[in-house]
Amino acid sequence: MARVDIALLTLEQKASLLSGQDQQFTKALPEAGVAAMLLCDGPYGVRFLPPGEYEDLESWLDIARPATCFPAGAGVGNSWSPEVAAEIGAAVGREARAYGVTVNLAPAMNIKRSPLCGRNFEYYSEDPLLTGVLAAAYVRAVQSEGVGASVKHFAANNQETSRMEISAEVDERTLREIYLRAFELVVTQAQPATVMAAYNRVNGVWVSENSWLLRTVLRTEWGFTGLVVSDWGAVNDRVAALRAGLDLEMPGRGEAQQRVIVDAVRSGDLDEAMVDESVGRVLALTEFVTAAEGSFDVDAHHALARKVATECVVLLKNDNETLPLDDARRIAVIGTFASEPRYRGGGSSRVRPTRVDVSIDAIRAITMKRGQRVSFAPGFTLDGSGDEESLQAAAVTLARECDVSVVFAGLAEQDESEGFDRARLELPAAQVALIRAVATASPRTVVVLAHGGVVSLEGWHDDVEAILDGSLIGQGAGGALADLLFGIENPSGRLAETIPVRLQDNPSYLNFPGELGQVRYGEGVMVGYRYYETADVAVRYPFGHGLSYTTFETSDLTVTSIGVDTVEVSVTVANTGRRAGRHVVQIYVSSEAGPVRRPVRELRAFKKISLLPGAVETATFILDHRSFAYYDVREGDWVVAGGQYTIQVGDSAAEIVAEATVTLTGHATLSALTLNSTVGDWLRHPVAGPRLLEVLGARSPMGEADASVPDPTELSRAVGSMRIRDFANHPKVGIPPEVLSKVLG
Amino acid sequence: MARVDIALLTLEQKASLLSGQDQQFTKALPEAGVAAMLLCDGPYGVRFLPPGEYEDLESWLDIARPATCFPAGAGVGNSWSPEVAAEIGAAVGREARAYGVTVNLAPAMNIKRSPLCGRNFEYYSEDPLLTGVLAAAYVRAVQSEGVGASVKHFAANNQETSRMEISAEVDERTLREIYLRAFELVVTQAQPATVMAAYNRVNGVWVSENSWLLRTVLRTEWGFTGLVVSDWGAVNDRVAALRAGLDLEMPGRGEAQQRVIVDAVRSGDLDEAMVDESVGRVLALTEFVTAAEGSFDVDAHHALARKVATECVVLLKNDNETLPLDDARRIAVIGTFASEPRYRGGGSSRVRPTRVDVSIDAIRAITMKRGQRVSFAPGFTLDGSGDEESLQAAAVTLARECDVSVVFAGLAEQDESEGFDRARLELPAAQVALIRAVATASPRTVVVLAHGGVVSLEGWHDDVEAILDGSLIGQGAGGALADLLFGIENPSGRLAETIPVRLQDNPSYLNFPGELGQVRYGEGVMVGYRYYETADVAVRYPFGHGLSYTTFETSDLTVTSIGVDTVEVSVTVANTGRRAGRHVVQIYVSSEAGPVRRPVRELRAFKKISLLPGAVETATFILDHRSFAYYDVREGDWVVAGGQYTIQVGDSAAEIVAEATVTLTGHATLSALTLNSTVGDWLRHPVAGPRLLEVLGARSPMGEADASVPDPTELSRAVGSMRIRDFANHPKVGIPPEVLSKVLG
Repeated sequence: MARVDIALLTLEQKASLLSGQDQQFTKALPEAGVAAMLLCDGPYGVRFLPPGEYEDLESWLDIARPATCFPAGAGVGNSWSPEVAAEIGAAVGREARAYGVTVNLAPAMNIKRSPLCGRNFEYYSEDPLLTGVLAAAYVRAVQSEGVGASVKHFAANNQETSRMEISAEVDERTLREIYLRAFELVVTQAQPATVMAAYNRVNGVWVSENSWLLRTVLRTEWGFTGLVVSDWGAVNDRVAALRAGLDLEMPGRGEAQQRVIVDAVRSGDLDEAMVDESVGRVLALTEFVTAAEGSFDVDAHHALARKVATECVVLLKNDNETLPLDDARRIAVIGTFASEPRYRGGGSSRVRPTRVDVSIDAIRAITMKRGQRVSFAPGFTLDGSGDEESLQAAAVTLARECDVSVVFAGLAEQDESEGFDRARLELPAAQVALIRAVATASPRTVVVLAHGGVVSLEGWHDDVEAILDGSLIGQGAGGALADLLFGIENPSGRLAETIPVRLQDNPSYLNFPGELGQVRYGEGVMVGYRYYETADVAVRYPFGHGLSYTTFETSDLTVTSIGVDTVEVSVTVANTGRRAGRHVVQIYVSSEAGPVRRPVRELRAFKKISLLPGAVETATFILDHRSFAYYDVREGDWVVAGGQYTIQVGDSAAEIVAEATVTLTGHATLSALTLNSTVGDWLRHPVAGPRLLEVLGARSPMGEADASVPDPTELSRAVGSMRIRDFANHPKVGIPPEVLSKVLG
Repeated sequence: MARVDIALLTLEQKASLLSGQDQQFTKALPEAGVAAMLLCDGPYGVRFLPPGEYEDLESWLDIARPATCFPAGAGVGNSWSPEVAAEIGAAVGREARAYGVTVNLAPAMNIKRSPLCGRNFEYYSEDPLLTGVLAAAYVRAVQSEGVGASVKHFAANNQETSRMEISAEVDERTLREIYLRAFELVVTQAQPATVMAAYNRVNGVWVSENSWLLRTVLRTEWGFTGLVVSDWGAVNDRVAALRAGLDLEMPGRGEAQQRVIVDAVRSGDLDEAMVDESVGRVLALTEFVTAAEGSFDVDAHHALARKVATECVVLLKNDNETLPLDDARRIAVIGTFASEPRYRGGGSSRVRPTRVDVSIDAIRAITMKRGQRVSFAPGFTLDGSGDEESLQAAAVTLARECDVSVVFAGLAEQDESEGFDRARLELPAAQVALIRAVATASPRTVVVLAHGGVVSLEGWHDDVEAILDGSLIGQGAGGALADLLFGIENPSGRLAETIPVRLQDNPSYLNFPGELGQVRYGEGVMVGYRYYETADVAVRYPFGHGLSYTTFETSDLTVTSIGVDTVEVSVTVANTGRRAGRHVVQIYVSSEAGPVRRPVRELRAFKKISLLPGAVETATFILDHRSFAYYDVREGDWVVAGGQYTIQVGDSAAEIVAEATVTLTGHATLSALTLNSTVGDWLRHPVAGPRLLEVLGARSPMGEADASVPDPTELSRAVGSMRIRDFANHPKVGIPPEVLSKVLG
């Protein structure tokens, strides 16, 4: 397609390109050779609706074209595998292209600040590195198929409650280190075609009108060259949004919105150059995408969905090697989720699947060949509408007769969705009662969980032998879980989100979901495991936790600093068990260097490696300056403070299996000091202290007789609590301001 | 003294009155009949220094005139007795007057946000009501003696680290409900002569230049008519401070500072009316004070110090009625604090006492008459400089030979002070080891604690039978503790600050003491017990806890609402034991009403009552609207939301012994809603929902055929997540903005 010349377009034509035609399409300008773009959800599968009118979410699903429903973000997060994210991204890209989709509205990549966030099932993790790496893999893969990605929801959109008006009150260091970090990674490493501006406000300013976010940070600092699109209905003031850098408003709101732009330019309120800039980005995107192709391989994509789903499952607990179910002769499969799988989330992400694997069917297919006997009892209904007591009684009777019971429990589709936050972490009471009753009756009990947001394991965890956490892993879930239960696949997922003991243990508990239009991010950077580990709060299962049917041993950690702020790390992992398996090498950094409070450790690198029994592999990582830096709000930059840094290899954030310490020179920063700091603070500073003493020595402040460098202890005792500038101004001292400023560099 | 006519003063004369002469005195204008004022520390006793030069804190004490050292704020807080605060205030007032002091720089009344704050020993409590009531009693009493009080440190000065530059980042609701509340109480109820502006910044603005704090809140809203004086050295920019409402700068900084004011007026930068206003307040204060009297009754004041000290002591634990020590025949008194009492804090509050009671002497005086044998072993040295091992061994040997051991443990004067925050809560390791060793050797062990900031009881709490918490209670401490140990007095203190299990359980843990010049008050209103009770975090001893040698029974709680937002509460307390004693009736209010997150309960009234054995008393309280209101930042006012309120009587914040619920009409507030709120939010609102439906019914938004009020459930399902203004603007709905605004009142 030939490039359209913006100069040939009228102002009205240009304005028309800056908001949608309807819910999915942008406006075309056939006379100018501009095609409409098609922007479709969602993050784990394509939901393409044939053009036409649709009223609400229910009918969306009825008319949506079938697409493969892949694992949701919660599942992909637990895979810790950029390869899994990439395989899904490529497949979604192919399906999108088949439907003529220009932009796939994915990935959803907000940080899981509270376990209650209704949309956590779409998001990857509580950790920004894990999120950013997975999102970048997804984006590269989608875009490699000629379809644009739209990373969302930029930024600090961490709850559903009041999302249309809430202001995230969050300090800059926390934004930079936690909530912007994953976006920074994906933008700088994968250049997504579009970034989606979220509904909410950040520190009082609508994201859609936030030029600091949309221009300064996104474009100037990170070098984003793509298109900024609004979340659907997120635009507050169209002209202010355009000025702030929001290019395309979605969905269409009729002629009125484009007239607003035209009028603003005509009245001089808006620079036409800004319109041209945004139009240029729309045109660039129409030219970026590949022409539609007519089909995709439904069977191959379903097989892929099942395969990647296995990597997303976390074996939380496996006492006495209860799993895999090799030797059980009679197996009770209990729970409606075994026959009616929970595999997708609610809201805009919902996909109409091409087919859905059912666990009980997949289990029967496996056990039939092996001579294991399987019986099924539903145990409960998904909406509590049945005779729950007799369902439970029947399940318990069955459990008593079998060698092992596998209870499929979880949250139903209506229990969580985009649009509202959850109120509690518990499974429905009937399911908890069922698990406990089955565990009492059965010699061995396995629980298989299906859910989007994290669920509490309290009240029944200790009663069961094994727990397989299936989170939300798409239409292949049923088969994948069967494969894992019977050892056809080996679990390799790791928790991307801490499972707390109690809701109130979460650091956002006091401040979630906020009030009167504001939510205070009072915990700062202490999100998820950063908090639990720092405050030493007991959790049920830590971030990064996950068992395997084989065993791994970590050894030979070597850590070498390269230059002032970069470190090379290598570590060896051996599969010491009898099955092939995958291990996730997790590299954390721990330090107290610098003038800010740091989490006790932070994930700085990871790698999932596949090892045959007996195999040994050495994983190597380069930790660059960002692995050691904090964001210094006074410097307005990332700073590696000089000092000691401990590199830790963890089987989880709570279980460090090897560590080694390096000393980094870092970069001298005097940002902790100002002219209002005390003399004591200056004297204690490793850089400023000696310099100050030198200045004082030259000026003999303690009296004419004393021309030597003063004793810092004595000085501190005498005037340590004075502001340095009051001390400097004192007639007996008299350090000129320019000399004092020079001490600060 | 005749009132000075400001109009007759030159600008230079006026400017000279607005900063001090030196550390203690303001400038006199003898030619105009203006006397110098004398402003002296401190919060629990007078520290008057004869005029002259003094170099540092050490020599201050050497030259200070003797004064009675009363219980520090930490002790008075634990008394829960405004009568105790008043008795101390009156005595300090008399001593101040005797030394010619114009203004007593007291009370110190910041909220104990973190147990680490180095100056907590001066402060009363983690609760603003308790703080405010005690401070008001103190101020009224001091001022009844013709001496001005100076409430400090206004405001949000809750740490020592970086106090000369730190900015407390704290939202307005938290300021209003927690950090300003006690000041509001003291200003509105006791009209202190002066308010002291703190060193720190609040939300980025120096308190000394914060006209919102010093003018809007303090004067306009609270009606303060007194003088605002700077904390010593707190002024940043003299002209900006004057403009913001800071009248008097202390201490003097020479001619330069007064020239700055003169120049600013001459250049038109500062309105001379502002100078006149501040000068007027200085003159008013010089006229407020009574002429000096020459002496005070040293013996009577010492007796008072001992008497009030007994009310400040908290009996934390008393297994098997170990205390009082009636029947012990041989008593081991262990610990250097028994012979060298810790009775005062460090920094500006230090007093040179008239005398100091020593516990071991007081104990011997009591036991001698009773035929009980007492032996003493120091057990440890205060600075760890002795042969600690042999001291401990000797103490253990003694303990083994006695019926009971009383260990005097605590923090030494150098362990805590103004000027620095503590790093940990533990007693020195040698003392912990001693307590454990003694507890093992002794049949019964009692621990008596002396400390300013809260100390951890972990590691030894369960090993001992009884704990008497003496905190910091002045020069009568030694005698008071002896009286309590032997039942001459009955303990009646209650904890004014929670004793946590671990430092990291405190809600400020993540954000204390901040970094790079800012400290985020991330826990909001959830300070102290408000947090522990709301998040259900286990504590060692809760706020309000304290035992007695007698028993009390609470009954007959009646709760009657009077009008829309006021409640009368009465409750009966009986002394059911065999000794006279004092009980503190603690009234908490618990509610989930309104659009903000509220602590699970908050102290709203209290009364300390004295009961003979068998006596019964009914305490009555009026809880006015402020007992139920939250501060609504959108309304800019205190709002009582309609709903249920539970009135709870507690033996502590954690132990509710009676409760009753009232429903209050309150005041309809629509502050939770804006035009950016969703249709669903509007529909769910008890006031706006019905109004909206009415408007919609009149406009038949669901189609022309439907002229009735729409079904809210269906409406919510269809458009619940839309912003109300987008919904209202929709062509099919078309509610004009003025109609929509009317729904919001």
